[in-house]
This record gives sequence, C-alpha cells and structure tokens, in this order.
Amino acid sequence: MTKVTLIGSGNVAQHLIRAFKNQAVLNSEIELIQVYTRKPESLLHLLDSGKITNDWDNLEESDVYILAVSDDAIATVSSQLPFKNRLVVHTSGGVALASLNDKNRKGIFYPLQTFSKNKLVDFTTIPICLEAQNENDYQILEQLAKSISNSVFSIDSDQRKALHVAAVFVNNFTNHLYQIGQEICLEHHVPFDILKPLILETAQKIIALSPQEAQTGPAKRNDTGTLEAHQLFLTNENQKNIYTILTQSIQSNAKKL
Amino acid sequence: MTKVTLIGSGNVAQHLIRAFKNQAVLNSEIELIQVYTRKPESLLHLLDSGKITNDWDNLEESDVYILAVSDDAIATVSSQLPFKNRLVVHTSGGVALASLNDKNRKGIFYPLQTFSKNKLVDFTTIPICLEAQNENDYQILEQLAKSISNSVFSIDSDQRKALHVAAVFVNNFTNHLYQIGQEICLEHHVPFDILKPLILETAQKIIALSPQEAQTGPAKRNDTGTLEAHQLFLTNENQKNIYTILTQSIQSNAKKL
Repeated sequence: MTKVTLIGSGNVAQHLIRAFKNQAVLNSEIELIQVYTRKPESLLHLLDSGKITNDWDNLEESDVYILAVSDDAIATVSSQLPFKNRLVVHTSGGVALASLNDKNRKGIFYPLQTFSKNKLVDFTTIPICLEAQNENDYQILEQLAKSISNSVFSIDSDQRKALHVAAVFVNNFTNHLYQIGQEICLEHHVPFDILKPLILETAQKIIALSPQEAQTGPAKRNDTGTLEAHQLFLTNENQKNIYTILTQSIQSNAKKL
Repeated sequence: MTKVTLIGSGNVAQHLIRAFKNQAVLNSEIELIQVYTRKPESLLHLLDSGKITNDWDNLEESDVYILAVSDDAIATVSSQLPFKNRLVVHTSGGVALASLNDKNRKGIFYPLQTFSKNKLVDFTTIPICLEAQNENDYQILEQLAKSISNSVFSIDSDQRKALHVAAVFVNNFTNHLYQIGQEICLEHHVPFDILKPLILETAQKIIALSPQEAQTGPAKRNDTGTLEAHQLFLTNENQKNIYTILTQSIQSNAKKL
C-alpha cells in the first residue's frame, strides 16, 4: 500500500482530494492518509476531521508528500517539513524541481489543467506530468498518478517549462480573447451567449484537426477588405493592436506553408 | 408550406442541406425544393440529382433563396438571379445587406459557427442571426431558422458586424494561439496532445463562468518572476511579441476591476 499525504487546501489540493477519494472506492493500493492545511475548516466538506491537521508535529509517516500550495510558497513550505530523506513533490508547472528543499527526495506531480473551485472535473482525463530524481521514486509517482488518471507522462524540467508557457497561450491568452469578444458584444448590445457554441466548436475541432488545418478567417484568406473593415469597426486601441499582431502572425504562418 | 432554394455547394451549403433534410423528417412545413450549383457532382452524396441544377433557367419558384456562397460572390450571384421581388438572403457575417442586388427583397440568414467539410455539427445548437427588410419576410426567415435551430436571434447589421469581429477573436485568433502552443511543444519534444484537455476545459468553463471570473495565470496574478522566465524561455520573436501584448492587455484589465 502506498500512503499519500497532501499539503494545501486550495483548488488543486481540493481536486486531488476528490480524485484520491474516488480512486479509493475501486483501489486499495493507494491511501490518502492525511492532509495538512493552516485552515482545517476549509476541508471539512471533503474529509473527516481526523484526517486533517494544522500542526507539522502531527504529520504521519507517508510514502509521498504532495505540496499543492501556491508557487511562491513551495520553497518555504518544503523547508518547514519536520523530516528528511522522504519523497516530496510539488504540483506546479512553473517552478523548478530545485526549488524544493534539499533535505528530502524531490519530484514533480503536475496535473496540467485549469481548476476552478466550483466546477468539478473528470480527473481520469487530466494529463499528469511526472519527474523524479531516481527510478524508484518515479515508479511511486507513476503508480499514484495512474490511480487517478489515464494520461500520465514522464516530463523533464525543460519540457515542463515548455508546457507551462504553451498552456499560457492556449488557456490564459485564449480566455482573454473570449473576454475581448464579450467586450465587443457588450459595446454593441449583442448577447455574448451567441458566441458560446462557436467557442466550444473551435476547441473541439482541435481534437480531430491540427491547428493549421482548422485555421480559417479573413487573415488566413488574406481578405484585405474584411481586415480593413474590422480595423475601422474596432474603437478600442488595445483591441486594434491585438487584432493587427495576431492577423500578421496568421499571415506569416500562411506564407510558410 | 414554405419552399426553400439553396444556392451554393460549399461547407455552409452542405451543412444547411443536411439540416433541412433532418428537419424534414419531423416537419412538413418546410421543404428544400432545389439546390443550384455550378458543380452538381459535388452534392450527389447528399441529394437526389433531380433536386440539383446548374442552370439558372431551371430555377423553380420558391419562398426563400439562400445564397450560401463566398463573400466575394454574393453581389455577383444575386445580380444573376433570373427573377425579381422574391426574398433572397445571404449567410455571411461579414457582408452588408446592401450587397444583395436591389431587384429582390433582401435578408440575412447567418449561422454563427465554424464549419469544416469533414466534421458534422448539431445544427439545433447553432445560433442563427436573422435580418429582413419587413416583418413579413422576417417571419418567413424565423420559421425557417426555427425549423433547424433552437437558437434564433434578430440581429441588425451593426450587431452582426460586431459578432463577426468578435468571432474572429474567439475563433480565428484562438485557433492561432493553439497553433503557437503546438509550435512550442514541437520545439521542446512534448506531445501537443497533453494540452488538449486544457484547451477543452478552457472553452467549457465559459459556459458557466464569465471570462473575467475564469481568467487565471501569471499575467492576472502579476507574477513578474514567471512572466520574465517565460519571456526568456521563448526563442521566437513573434511569440515573444504576442506574449507581451496579451500579458499587458490582461494586466490593464485586471487594474480596471
């Protein structure tokens, strides 16, 4: 049996708690034995109070300690752990393995997804990116990851950094384009809901087609009449600027093909 | 009974033919009586050859003629129609009502979705944006639209232009960000598939949350350490430039809240 301890109570921690509880129904190989948080009350809807502690001295021995804390807190929290030579991993795409304190064995357990407090996710479809310093530790992490997800990858630190930057483009920046779409709708008294089926289909297309194959629109067609009309229609300088930069980027890509 | 004639054989025309055929199973109020195309062979997998013509003189009388042709062809094709005072509509988000020839009554029948040749869509969920020059024509278009979609809107030309520009942001530009994500993955030997669940979840979030509520990431948190690390990591000047512009735009939005 592999024992897991979770440290943290934020979005990622809560989604991991749910995932480990779900797998426990089918699988007796992995047990979430304890969660450390400074705010035990924030987890009482998910766990029995006997499994929650806010005292480092009450931490039980475990095979893996998962730090699901904010990026800034990883170095500090890993230095506060009152033990050494155990396997301690963090869940961040953007923080180096080296940020974990040297007194313990280090690893990464990075679920690549955007988590919201009030929206459940199917953890079995979420890619989990793993890194460890030796094969034995990797196998522990792999067993753990495979108990909650069907999509587990060995990803080194350079690859993880690439994924994190790419995720900013496809998640944070994409969401910002949705926001600009909403702003344009508001300004012209059109319900933003009209665009939602298009937003969903744009994402779903990528499952079957490459982004190159899926690319459409006036920039791809080099339809200069429409491009000029859109520039004249936009009243916000920032929106105009983003329109220009992304149009040029699509056009220079089209030329490369 | 309302009779419909379709002109065109491209993506939009083919998806409309499928939608009208599907509704005809349940509904005898609307009949697609004929399709005009210069390439009859391109529609034989969808329609009986007796319903397809490539000769303007063979066009039968109909209640609505839907021009599902490319933006550039709308003016020319509408001037070639061998009749007058009938209801002629186009399906484009980016072309003015006035582009239709004056000899017929004009309207818009704009399904707001991205259509691919090899990917079927559920037409009942696609918003259809309608415009007509009088109430009677509007009612004909509304009956037609409601026979194939549960999502029908009265949208004037200014609103339609806004939707078309907003659609470029949430569809064409978003797809281009997916492509940049893929380029970064390729460069660092990471499978792009790892990002696909994130892409889907980013879109699905928008159904329940506003883009403002859904916004996350280093730009939103003003995490300057991560922002600088990402800038250093990117090797492509175009990608760096897009990263900077979109980060600044998210930050200036965050300040407004």
